[in-house]
Amino acid sequence: MIPAPDETCDDFLGGRVRMLQPTHGYRAGVDPVLLAAAVDAKAGQRILELGCGAGAASLCLNARISGLSFVGVELQAAYADLARRNADGNGAQMEIVDADIRALPAQIKAQNFDHVIANPPYYRRAASTSAHDAGRDVALGGDTPLEVWVDVAARRLAPKGYLTMIQKADRLADLLNALTGRLGSVRVLPVHPRLSRPAQLVIVQARKGGRADFCLLSPLVMHKGAHHERDEDSYTPQVSDILRNGHPLALI
Amino acid sequence: MIPAPDETCDDFLGGRVRMLQPTHGYRAGVDPVLLAAAVDAKAGQRILELGCGAGAASLCLNARISGLSFVGVELQAAYADLARRNADGNGAQMEIVDADIRALPAQIKAQNFDHVIANPPYYRRAASTSAHDAGRDVALGGDTPLEVWVDVAARRLAPKGYLTMIQKADRLADLLNALTGRLGSVRVLPVHPRLSRPAQLVIVQARKGGRADFCLLSPLVMHKGAHHERDEDSYTPQVSDILRNGHPLALI
Repeated sequence: MIPAPDETCDDFLGGRVRMLQPTHGYRAGVDPVLLAAAVDAKAGQRILELGCGAGAASLCLNARISGLSFVGVELQAAYADLARRNADGNGAQMEIVDADIRALPAQIKAQNFDHVIANPPYYRRAASTSAHDAGRDVALGGDTPLEVWVDVAARRLAPKGYLTMIQKADRLADLLNALTGRLGSVRVLPVHPRLSRPAQLVIVQARKGGRADFCLLSPLVMHKGAHHERDEDSYTPQVSDILRNGHPLALI
Repeated sequence: MIPAPDETCDDFLGGRVRMLQPTHGYRAGVDPVLLAAAVDAKAGQRILELGCGAGAASLCLNARISGLSFVGVELQAAYADLARRNADGNGAQMEIVDADIRALPAQIKAQNFDHVIANPPYYRRAASTSAHDAGRDVALGGDTPLEVWVDVAARRLAPKGYLTMIQKADRLADLLNALTGRLGSVRVLPVHPRLSRPAQLVIVQARKGGRADFCLLSPLVMHKGAHHERDEDSYTPQVSDILRNGHPLALI
Protein backbone atom coordinates (compact mmCIF):
# COMPACT_ATOMS: atom_id res chain seq x y z
CA MET A 1 0.00 0.00 0.00
CA ILE A 2 1.30 3.46 -0.84
CA PRO A 3 0.65 6.02 1.87
CA ALA A 4 -0.79 9.41 0.94
CA PRO A 5 1.24 12.51 1.92
CA ASP A 6 -0.50 12.73 5.30
CA GLU A 7 -0.21 9.01 6.01
CA THR A 8 2.48 6.58 7.05
CA CYS A 9 2.71 2.84 6.44
CA ASP A 10 3.68 1.13 9.66
CA ASP A 11 4.70 -2.38 10.65
CA PHE A 12 3.11 -4.38 13.43
CA LEU A 13 3.93 -7.89 14.61
CA GLY A 14 7.40 -7.71 13.14
CA GLY A 15 6.03 -6.86 9.68
CA ARG A 16 3.29 -9.49 9.60
CA VAL A 17 0.90 -6.54 9.48
CA ARG A 18 1.56 -3.39 7.50
CA MET A 19 -1.00 -0.66 7.84
CA LEU A 20 -1.69 2.90 6.82
CA GLN A 21 -2.22 5.42 9.60
CA PRO A 22 -2.63 9.21 9.63
CA THR A 23 0.69 10.93 10.33
CA HIS A 24 -0.91 13.38 12.74
CA GLY A 25 -4.04 11.61 13.93
CA TYR A 26 -4.61 8.72 16.28
CA ARG A 27 -1.78 6.22 15.81
CA ALA A 28 -2.03 2.68 17.16
CA GLY A 29 0.51 1.81 19.80
CA VAL A 30 0.91 -1.48 21.63
CA ASP A 31 -2.59 -1.51 23.08
CA PRO A 32 -4.48 -2.95 20.09
CA VAL A 33 -1.63 -5.43 19.59
CA LEU A 34 -1.96 -6.68 23.18
CA LEU A 35 -5.74 -6.78 22.82
CA ALA A 36 -5.50 -8.93 19.71
CA ALA A 37 -2.97 -11.27 21.31
CA ALA A 38 -5.41 -11.96 24.16
CA VAL A 39 -8.17 -13.26 21.88
CA ASP A 40 -8.24 -17.05 21.77
CA ALA A 41 -10.13 -17.40 18.50
CA LYS A 42 -10.47 -20.46 16.31
CA ALA A 43 -10.69 -20.78 12.52
CA GLY A 44 -14.23 -20.24 11.32
CA GLN A 45 -15.14 -17.80 14.07
CA ARG A 46 -16.61 -14.32 13.54
CA ILE A 47 -15.06 -11.29 15.19
CA LEU A 48 -16.71 -7.92 15.78
CA GLU A 49 -14.42 -4.99 16.55
CA LEU A 50 -16.14 -1.97 18.05
CA GLY A 51 -14.31 1.27 17.36
CA CYS A 52 -11.79 -0.37 15.04
CA GLY A 53 -10.01 2.80 13.92
CA ALA A 54 -7.67 1.93 11.07
CA GLY A 55 -8.04 -1.75 11.97
CA ALA A 56 -4.93 -2.51 14.05
CA ALA A 57 -6.43 -5.00 16.52
CA SER A 58 -8.39 -7.01 13.94
CA LEU A 59 -5.44 -7.10 11.55
CA CYS A 60 -3.09 -8.37 14.26
CA LEU A 61 -5.59 -11.08 15.18
CA ASN A 62 -6.00 -11.95 11.50
CA ALA A 63 -2.24 -12.29 11.14
CA ARG A 64 -2.01 -14.74 14.07
CA ILE A 65 -5.07 -16.94 13.43
CA SER A 66 -6.25 -17.86 9.96
CA GLY A 67 -9.82 -18.54 8.90
CA LEU A 68 -11.41 -15.68 10.84
CA SER A 69 -13.91 -13.18 9.44
CA PHE A 70 -14.24 -9.68 10.81
CA VAL A 71 -16.69 -6.81 11.05
CA GLY A 72 -15.20 -3.50 12.17
CA VAL A 73 -17.41 -0.61 13.30
CA GLU A 74 -15.86 2.84 13.15
CA LEU A 75 -17.42 6.23 13.82
CA GLN A 76 -15.00 8.40 11.90
CA ALA A 77 -15.19 8.01 8.11
CA ALA A 78 -11.51 8.79 7.56
CA TYR A 79 -10.43 5.94 9.85
CA ALA A 80 -13.06 3.60 8.40
CA ASP A 81 -11.62 4.27 4.93
CA LEU A 82 -8.12 3.51 6.17
CA ALA A 83 -9.44 0.31 7.74
CA ARG A 84 -10.89 -0.79 4.37
CA ARG A 85 -7.59 -0.18 2.61
CA ASN A 86 -5.69 -1.92 5.42
CA ALA A 87 -8.00 -4.92 5.40
CA ASP A 88 -7.47 -5.29 1.64
CA GLY A 89 -3.76 -4.71 1.91
CA ASN A 90 -3.40 -7.40 4.60
CA GLY A 91 -5.70 -10.03 3.13
CA ALA A 92 -8.23 -9.83 5.94
CA GLN A 93 -11.80 -10.96 5.37
CA MET A 94 -13.14 -7.80 7.00
CA GLU A 95 -16.24 -5.68 6.45
CA ILE A 96 -15.96 -2.10 7.71
CA VAL A 97 -19.12 -0.35 8.84
CA ASP A 98 -19.24 3.44 9.22
CA ALA A 99 -21.42 3.77 12.31
CA ASP A 100 -21.75 4.90 15.89
CA ILE A 101 -21.76 1.78 18.08
CA ARG A 102 -24.96 3.11 19.65
CA ALA A 103 -26.69 2.98 16.25
CA LEU A 104 -25.54 -0.18 14.55
CA PRO A 105 -27.16 -0.85 11.20
CA ALA A 106 -29.87 -3.49 11.10
CA GLN A 107 -27.75 -5.97 9.14
CA ILE A 108 -25.13 -5.93 11.92
CA LYS A 109 -27.72 -6.21 14.68
CA ALA A 110 -29.03 -9.28 12.90
CA GLN A 111 -25.67 -10.99 13.42
CA ASN A 112 -24.03 -12.67 16.40
CA PHE A 113 -20.30 -12.95 16.87
CA ASP A 114 -18.02 -15.43 18.61
CA HIS A 115 -15.77 -12.62 19.83
CA VAL A 116 -16.27 -8.91 20.34
CA ILE A 117 -13.12 -6.87 20.82
CA ALA A 118 -12.69 -3.22 21.74
CA ASN A 119 -10.09 -0.64 22.68
CA PRO A 120 -12.52 2.14 23.69
CA PRO A 121 -11.45 5.75 24.14
CA TYR A 122 -9.44 6.14 27.32
CA TYR A 123 -10.61 9.50 28.55
CA ARG A 124 -14.01 10.65 29.65
CA ARG A 125 -14.76 13.59 27.39
CA ALA A 126 -15.87 15.90 30.22
CA ALA A 127 -12.82 15.13 32.29
CA SER A 128 -10.05 15.59 29.76
CA THR A 129 -8.44 18.29 27.68
CA SER A 130 -8.91 17.88 23.92
CA ALA A 131 -6.19 16.67 21.59
CA HIS A 132 -5.29 19.11 18.87
CA ASP A 133 -6.15 16.71 16.07
CA ALA A 134 -9.91 16.20 15.82
CA GLY A 135 -9.56 12.57 14.77
CA ARG A 136 -7.20 11.82 17.61
CA ASP A 137 -9.47 13.73 19.96
CA VAL A 138 -12.46 11.51 19.29
CA ALA A 139 -10.33 8.40 19.40
CA LEU A 140 -8.84 9.30 22.75
CA GLY A 141 -11.86 10.81 24.46
CA GLY A 142 -15.24 9.51 23.48
CA ASP A 143 -18.75 10.55 24.37
CA THR A 144 -19.98 6.99 24.73
CA PRO A 145 -19.88 5.65 28.29
CA LEU A 146 -17.98 2.44 28.90
CA GLU A 147 -21.23 0.83 29.96
CA VAL A 148 -22.63 1.33 26.48
CA TRP A 149 -19.59 -0.33 24.89
CA VAL A 150 -20.13 -3.36 27.13
CA ASP A 151 -23.87 -3.40 26.53
CA VAL A 152 -23.51 -3.29 22.76
CA ALA A 153 -20.87 -6.01 22.91
CA ALA A 154 -23.01 -8.24 25.10
CA ARG A 155 -25.95 -7.95 22.72
CA ARG A 156 -23.86 -8.89 19.69
CA LEU A 157 -22.18 -11.90 21.29
CA ALA A 158 -23.31 -15.42 20.52
CA PRO A 159 -24.00 -17.59 23.59
CA LYS A 160 -20.68 -18.48 25.24
CA GLY A 161 -18.93 -15.87 23.10
CA TYR A 162 -16.18 -13.68 24.57
CA LEU A 163 -15.75 -9.95 24.99
CA THR A 164 -12.13 -8.83 25.23
CA MET A 165 -11.31 -5.19 25.98
CA ILE A 166 -8.28 -3.15 26.85
CA GLN A 167 -8.63 0.00 28.90
CA LYS A 168 -6.81 2.30 31.28
CA ALA A 169 -6.47 0.65 34.66
CA ASP A 170 -8.26 3.49 36.43
CA ARG A 171 -11.50 2.52 34.64
CA LEU A 172 -11.55 -0.95 36.19
CA ALA A 173 -14.41 -0.20 38.58
CA ASP A 174 -16.57 1.15 35.74
CA LEU A 175 -15.72 -1.82 33.56
CA LEU A 176 -16.50 -4.42 36.23
CA ASN A 177 -19.73 -2.62 37.03
CA ALA A 178 -20.73 -2.64 33.36
CA LEU A 179 -20.06 -6.37 33.14
CA THR A 180 -22.13 -7.20 36.23
CA GLY A 181 -25.41 -8.74 35.16
CA ARG A 182 -24.42 -8.85 31.49
CA LEU A 183 -21.41 -11.14 31.12
CA GLY A 184 -19.70 -13.65 33.41
CA SER A 185 -16.45 -15.60 33.84
CA VAL A 186 -14.64 -12.25 34.11
CA ARG A 187 -10.86 -12.35 33.91
CA VAL A 188 -8.73 -9.27 34.56
CA LEU A 189 -5.11 -9.01 33.43
CA PRO A 190 -3.27 -6.02 34.91
CA VAL A 191 -0.60 -4.59 32.59
CA HIS A 192 2.27 -2.84 34.37
CA PRO A 193 5.01 -0.76 32.72
CA ARG A 194 7.42 -2.30 35.23
CA LEU A 195 6.65 -4.84 37.96
CA SER A 196 7.24 -2.32 40.73
CA ARG A 197 4.85 0.27 39.28
CA PRO A 198 1.05 0.35 39.37
CA ALA A 199 -0.83 -1.06 36.40
CA GLN A 200 -1.44 1.39 33.55
CA LEU A 201 -3.81 -0.82 31.59
CA VAL A 202 -6.11 -3.75 32.15
CA ILE A 203 -7.14 -6.38 29.64
CA VAL A 204 -10.54 -7.70 30.63
CA GLN A 205 -12.28 -10.73 29.18
CA ALA A 206 -15.80 -11.93 29.91
CA ARG A 207 -18.13 -14.55 28.53
CA LYS A 208 -21.80 -14.46 27.58
CA GLY A 209 -23.47 -16.97 29.86
CA GLY A 210 -20.19 -17.52 31.65
CA ARG A 211 -20.47 -18.75 35.26
CA ALA A 212 -16.87 -19.23 36.36
CA ASP A 213 -15.59 -17.20 39.30
CA PHE A 214 -13.98 -13.82 38.73
CA CYS A 215 -10.24 -14.18 38.23
CA LEU A 216 -7.56 -11.52 38.85
CA LEU A 217 -4.65 -12.83 36.82
CA SER A 218 -0.92 -12.76 37.26
CA PRO A 219 0.16 -9.42 35.75
CA LEU A 220 1.77 -8.73 32.38
CA VAL A 221 4.91 -6.63 32.75
CA MET A 222 5.96 -4.53 29.76
CA HIS A 223 9.54 -3.57 30.57
CA LYS A 224 12.43 -5.24 32.34
CA GLY A 225 14.06 -3.72 35.36
CA ALA A 226 13.02 -1.35 38.08
CA HIS A 227 13.46 1.84 36.07
CA HIS A 228 14.38 3.16 32.66
CA GLU A 229 18.08 2.57 32.15
CA ARG A 230 18.84 2.78 28.44
CA ASP A 231 17.01 3.85 25.37
CA GLU A 232 17.07 0.55 23.58
CA ASP A 233 14.22 -1.93 23.59
CA SER A 234 13.62 -3.04 27.16
CA TYR A 235 10.49 -5.13 26.69
CA THR A 236 10.25 -8.31 28.71
CA PRO A 237 10.72 -11.50 26.65
CA GLN A 238 7.02 -12.31 26.88
CA VAL A 239 5.98 -8.89 25.58
CA SER A 240 8.68 -8.89 22.91
CA ASP A 241 7.33 -12.22 21.63
CA ILE A 242 3.81 -10.78 21.52
CA LEU A 243 4.77 -7.54 19.76
CA ARG A 244 7.45 -8.82 17.40
CA ASN A 245 6.70 -12.49 16.85
CA GLY A 246 2.92 -12.61 16.94
CA HIS A 247 2.72 -14.80 20.04
CA PRO A 248 -0.60 -15.07 21.86
CA LEU A 249 -1.26 -13.64 25.32
CA ALA A 250 -2.86 -16.38 27.38
CA LEU A 251 -5.30 -15.12 30.00
CA ILE A 252 -4.35 -17.59 32.71
CA MET B 1 -2.35 -15.37 79.31
CA ILE B 2 -3.23 -18.96 80.16
CA PRO B 3 -5.42 -20.64 77.54
CA ALA B 4 -8.48 -22.57 78.63
CA PRO B 5 -8.67 -26.27 77.61
CA ASP B 6 -10.43 -25.39 74.34
CA GLU B 7 -8.07 -22.51 73.54
CA THR B 8 -4.55 -22.06 72.27
CA CYS B 9 -2.16 -19.16 72.80
CA ASP B 10 -0.57 -18.26 69.47
CA ASP B 11 2.22 -15.97 68.36
CA PHE B 12 1.90 -13.38 65.63
CA LEU B 13 4.54 -10.96 64.33
CA GLY B 14 7.33 -13.14 65.62
CA GLY B 15 5.93 -13.10 69.15
CA ARG B 16 5.24 -9.36 69.34
CA VAL B 17 1.59 -10.38 69.66
CA ARG B 18 0.43 -13.36 71.68
CA MET B 19 -3.25 -14.11 71.53
CA LEU B 20 -5.81 -16.65 72.65
CA GLN B 21 -7.87 -18.36 69.99
CA PRO B 22 -10.38 -21.22 70.06
CA THR B 23 -8.72 -24.54 69.19
CA HIS B 24 -11.58 -25.56 66.94
CA GLY B 25 -13.17 -22.31 65.92
CA TYR B 26 -12.12 -19.57 63.51
CA ARG B 27 -8.34 -19.18 63.76
CA ALA B 28 -6.58 -16.12 62.36
CA GLY B 29 -4.15 -16.84 59.55
CA VAL B 30 -2.05 -14.37 57.63
CA ASP B 31 -4.99 -12.29 56.38
CA PRO B 32 -5.50 -10.08 59.45
CA VAL B 33 -1.72 -9.71 59.73
CA LEU B 34 -1.47 -8.44 56.15
CA LEU B 35 -4.47 -6.19 56.71
CA ALA B 36 -2.85 -4.61 59.77
CA ALA B 37 0.47 -4.13 57.99
CA ALA B 38 -1.29 -2.11 55.27
CA VAL B 39 -2.66 0.50 57.66
CA ASP B 40 -0.53 3.64 57.70
CA ALA B 41 -1.68 4.96 61.07
CA LYS B 42 -0.04 7.63 63.20
CA ALA B 43 0.20 7.95 66.97
CA GLY B 44 -2.93 9.53 68.40
CA GLN B 45 -5.27 8.12 65.76
CA ARG B 46 -8.43 6.12 66.46
CA ILE B 47 -9.02 2.78 64.77
CA LEU B 48 -12.33 0.97 64.35
CA GLU B 49 -12.21 -2.71 63.51
CA LEU B 50 -15.46 -4.17 62.18
CA GLY B 51 -15.78 -7.89 62.85
CA CYS B 52 -12.65 -8.02 64.97
CA GLY B 53 -12.95 -11.66 66.05
CA ALA B 54 -10.37 -12.37 68.74
CA GLY B 55 -8.59 -9.13 67.79
CA ALA B 56 -5.76 -10.26 65.51
CA ALA B 57 -5.68 -7.32 63.09
CA SER B 58 -5.97 -4.60 65.73
CA LEU B 59 -3.38 -6.26 67.95
CA CYS B 60 -0.90 -6.53 65.08
CA LEU B 61 -1.42 -2.87 64.25
CA ASN B 62 -1.03 -1.99 67.93
CA ALA B 63 2.26 -3.87 68.06
CA ARG B 64 3.67 -1.98 65.07
CA ILE B 65 2.50 1.59 65.83
CA SER B 66 2.27 2.98 69.34
CA GLY B 67 -0.17 5.56 70.58
CA LEU B 68 -3.25 4.18 68.81
CA SER B 69 -6.65 3.57 70.41
CA PHE B 70 -9.02 0.91 69.13
CA VAL B 71 -12.68 -0.01 69.10
CA GLY B 72 -13.45 -3.55 67.96
CA VAL B 73 -16.98 -4.61 67.02
CA GLU B 74 -17.68 -8.33 67.15
CA LEU B 75 -20.97 -10.19 66.65
CA GLN B 76 -20.13 -13.39 68.48
CA ALA B 77 -19.83 -13.03 72.26
CA ALA B 78 -17.25 -15.78 72.62
CA TYR B 79 -14.86 -14.04 70.21
CA ALA B 80 -15.58 -10.65 71.76
CA ASP B 81 -14.57 -12.06 75.15
CA LEU B 82 -11.36 -13.45 73.70
CA ALA B 83 -10.68 -10.06 72.15
CA ARG B 84 -11.02 -8.37 75.56
CA ARG B 85 -8.59 -10.79 77.15
CA ASN B 86 -6.21 -10.44 74.20
CA ALA B 87 -6.34 -6.65 74.28
CA ASP B 88 -5.48 -6.70 77.99
CA GLY B 89 -2.80 -9.31 77.52
CA ASN B 90 -1.12 -7.29 74.74
CA GLY B 91 -1.40 -3.86 76.29
CA ALA B 92 -3.73 -2.49 73.64
CA GLN B 93 -5.95 0.48 74.40
CA MET B 94 -8.96 -1.29 72.92
CA GLU B 95 -12.69 -1.26 73.71
CA ILE B 96 -14.60 -4.33 72.48
CA VAL B 97 -18.26 -3.92 71.60
CA ASP B 98 -20.57 -6.94 71.29
CA ALA B 99 -22.71 -5.90 68.35
CA ASP B 100 -23.85 -6.56 64.82
CA ILE B 101 -22.18 -3.97 62.55
CA ARG B 102 -25.66 -3.20 61.21
CA ALA B 103 -26.79 -2.16 64.71
CA LEU B 104 -23.92 -0.26 66.26
CA PRO B 105 -24.65 1.17 69.69
CA ALA B 106 -25.33 4.89 69.89
CA GLN B 107 -22.05 5.66 71.66
CA ILE B 108 -20.10 4.15 68.74
CA LYS B 109 -22.22 5.91 66.13
CA ALA B 110 -21.40 9.15 67.92
CA GLN B 111 -17.70 8.63 67.18
CA ASN B 112 -15.59 9.08 64.06
CA PHE B 113 -12.41 7.18 63.37
CA ASP B 114 -9.24 7.90 61.44
CA HIS B 115 -9.11 4.34 60.16
CA VAL B 116 -11.68 1.60 59.77
CA ILE B 117 -10.32 -1.88 59.14
CA ALA B 118 -12.13 -5.08 58.28
CA ASN B 119 -11.55 -8.67 57.24
CA PRO B 120 -15.20 -9.54 56.43
CA PRO B 121 -16.44 -13.10 55.99
CA TYR B 122 -15.21 -14.51 52.72
CA TYR B 123 -18.16 -16.56 51.61
CA ARG B 124 -21.67 -15.52 50.73
CA ARG B 125 -23.85 -17.51 53.08
CA ALA B 126 -26.28 -18.72 50.39
CA ALA B 127 -23.45 -19.81 48.14
CA SER B 128 -21.32 -21.83 50.51
CA THR B 129 -21.45 -25.01 52.56
CA SER B 130 -21.36 -24.46 56.33
CA ALA B 131 -18.31 -25.07 58.49
CA HIS B 132 -18.83 -27.62 61.23
CA ASP B 133 -18.00 -25.20 64.00
CA ALA B 134 -20.73 -22.60 64.46
CA GLY B 135 -18.28 -19.87 65.39
CA ARG B 136 -16.09 -20.59 62.41
CA ASP B 137 -19.19 -20.81 60.24
CA VAL B 138 -20.31 -17.28 61.02
CA ALA B 139 -16.77 -15.97 60.72
CA LEU B 140 -16.28 -17.51 57.31
CA GLY B 141 -19.71 -16.98 55.81
CA GLY B 142 -21.66 -13.99 56.96
CA ASP B 143 -25.18 -12.79 56.30
CA THR B 144 -24.15 -9.17 55.93
CA PRO B 145 -23.49 -8.08 52.35
CA LEU B 146 -20.13 -6.54 51.55
CA GLU B 147 -21.89 -3.33 50.64
CA VAL B 148 -23.13 -2.99 54.21
CA TRP B 149 -19.60 -3.41 55.59
CA VAL B 150 -18.42 -0.60 53.32
CA ASP B 151 -21.42 1.58 54.12
CA VAL B 152 -20.96 1.22 57.89
CA ALA B 153 -17.25 1.92 57.52
CA ALA B 154 -17.83 5.02 55.41
CA ARG B 155 -20.24 6.45 57.96
CA ARG B 156 -17.83 5.96 60.86
CA LEU B 157 -14.82 7.47 59.09
CA ALA B 158 -13.66 10.98 59.85
CA PRO B 159 -13.17 13.20 56.79
CA LYS B 160 -10.03 12.04 54.92
CA GLY B 161 -10.00 8.86 57.01
CA TYR B 162 -9.10 5.50 55.44
CA LEU B 163 -10.93 2.21 55.07
CA THR B 164 -8.64 -0.79 54.64
CA MET B 165 -10.13 -4.21 53.93
CA ILE B 166 -8.88 -7.61 52.92
CA GLN B 167 -11.11 -9.95 50.97
CA LYS B 168 -11.09 -12.86 48.51
CA ALA B 169 -10.05 -11.63 45.08
CA ASP B 170 -13.26 -12.88 43.48
CA ARG B 171 -15.23 -10.27 45.45
CA LEU B 172 -13.35 -7.38 43.82
CA ALA B 173 -16.25 -6.29 41.63
CA ASP B 174 -18.64 -6.20 44.62
CA LEU B 175 -16.10 -4.30 46.68
CA LEU B 176 -15.39 -1.68 44.02
CA ASN B 177 -19.11 -1.29 43.42
CA ALA B 178 -19.70 -0.74 47.15
CA LEU B 179 -16.99 1.92 47.25
CA THR B 180 -18.37 3.84 44.27
CA GLY B 181 -20.08 6.97 45.49
CA ARG B 182 -19.00 6.43 49.10
CA LEU B 183 -15.21 6.55 49.25
CA GLY B 184 -12.50 7.67 46.82
CA SER B 185 -8.76 7.37 46.15
CA VAL B 186 -9.23 3.62 45.86
CA ARG B 187 -6.08 1.49 45.83
CA VAL B 188 -6.17 -2.25 45.13
CA LEU B 189 -3.30 -4.55 46.05
CA PRO B 190 -3.61 -8.04 44.53
CA VAL B 191 -2.13 -10.78 46.71
CA HIS B 192 -0.91 -13.84 44.81
CA PRO B 193 0.21 -17.15 46.34
CA ARG B 194 2.92 -17.24 43.65
CA LEU B 195 3.60 -14.69 40.93
CA SER B 196 2.46 -17.01 38.18
CA ARG B 197 -0.89 -17.78 39.82
CA PRO B 198 -4.04 -15.65 39.95
CA ALA B 199 -4.58 -13.47 43.00
CA GLN B 200 -6.33 -15.16 45.93
CA LEU B 201 -6.87 -12.03 47.97
CA VAL B 202 -7.08 -8.30 47.50
CA ILE B 203 -6.26 -5.60 50.02
CA VAL B 204 -8.32 -2.54 49.18
CA GLN B 205 -7.90 0.92 50.67
CA ALA B 206 -10.12 3.93 50.11
CA ARG B 207 -10.41 7.40 51.58
CA LYS B 208 -13.40 9.43 52.74
CA GLY B 209 -13.46 12.47 50.52
CA GLY B 210 -10.56 11.06 48.53
CA ARG B 211 -10.28 12.29 44.92
CA ALA B 212 -7.15 10.63 43.60
CA ASP B 213 -7.45 8.27 40.64
CA PHE B 214 -8.07 4.59 41.18
CA CYS B 215 -4.78 2.70 41.46
CA LEU B 216 -4.17 -1.00 40.73
CA LEU B 217 -0.91 -1.65 42.56
CA SER B 218 2.07 -3.86 41.91
CA PRO B 219 1.09 -7.22 43.42
CA LEU B 220 2.20 -8.77 46.71
CA VAL B 221 3.52 -12.30 46.21
CA MET B 222 3.34 -14.66 49.17
CA HIS B 223 5.65 -17.51 48.16
CA LYS B 224 8.87 -17.78 46.21
CA GLY B 225 9.14 -19.91 43.13
CA ALA B 226 6.76 -21.22 40.51
CA HIS B 227 5.38 -24.10 42.55
CA HIS B 228 5.55 -25.76 45.91
CA GLU B 229 8.93 -27.44 46.21
CA ARG B 230 9.61 -28.12 49.86
CA ASP B 231 7.68 -27.99 53.06
CA GLU B 232 9.74 -25.36 54.78
CA ASP B 233 8.88 -21.70 54.88
CA SER B 234 8.86 -20.32 51.35
CA TYR B 235 7.56 -16.84 51.96
CA THR B 236 9.08 -14.09 49.88
CA PRO B 237 11.43 -11.79 51.85
CA GLN B 238 8.86 -8.98 51.80
CA VAL B 239 6.13 -11.19 53.25
CA SER B 240 8.47 -12.78 55.75
CA ASP B 241 9.37 -9.31 57.03
CA ILE B 242 5.70 -8.45 57.38
CA LEU B 243 4.70 -11.67 59.16
CA ARG B 244 7.78 -12.21 61.33
CA ASN B 245 9.31 -8.79 61.83
CA GLY B 246 6.29 -6.51 61.97
CA HIS B 247 7.20 -4.56 58.83
CA PRO B 248 4.56 -2.39 57.21
CA LEU B 249 2.99 -3.13 53.83
CA ALA B 250 3.15 0.06 51.80
CA LEU B 251 0.27 0.48 49.36
CA ILE B 252 2.33 1.99 46.54
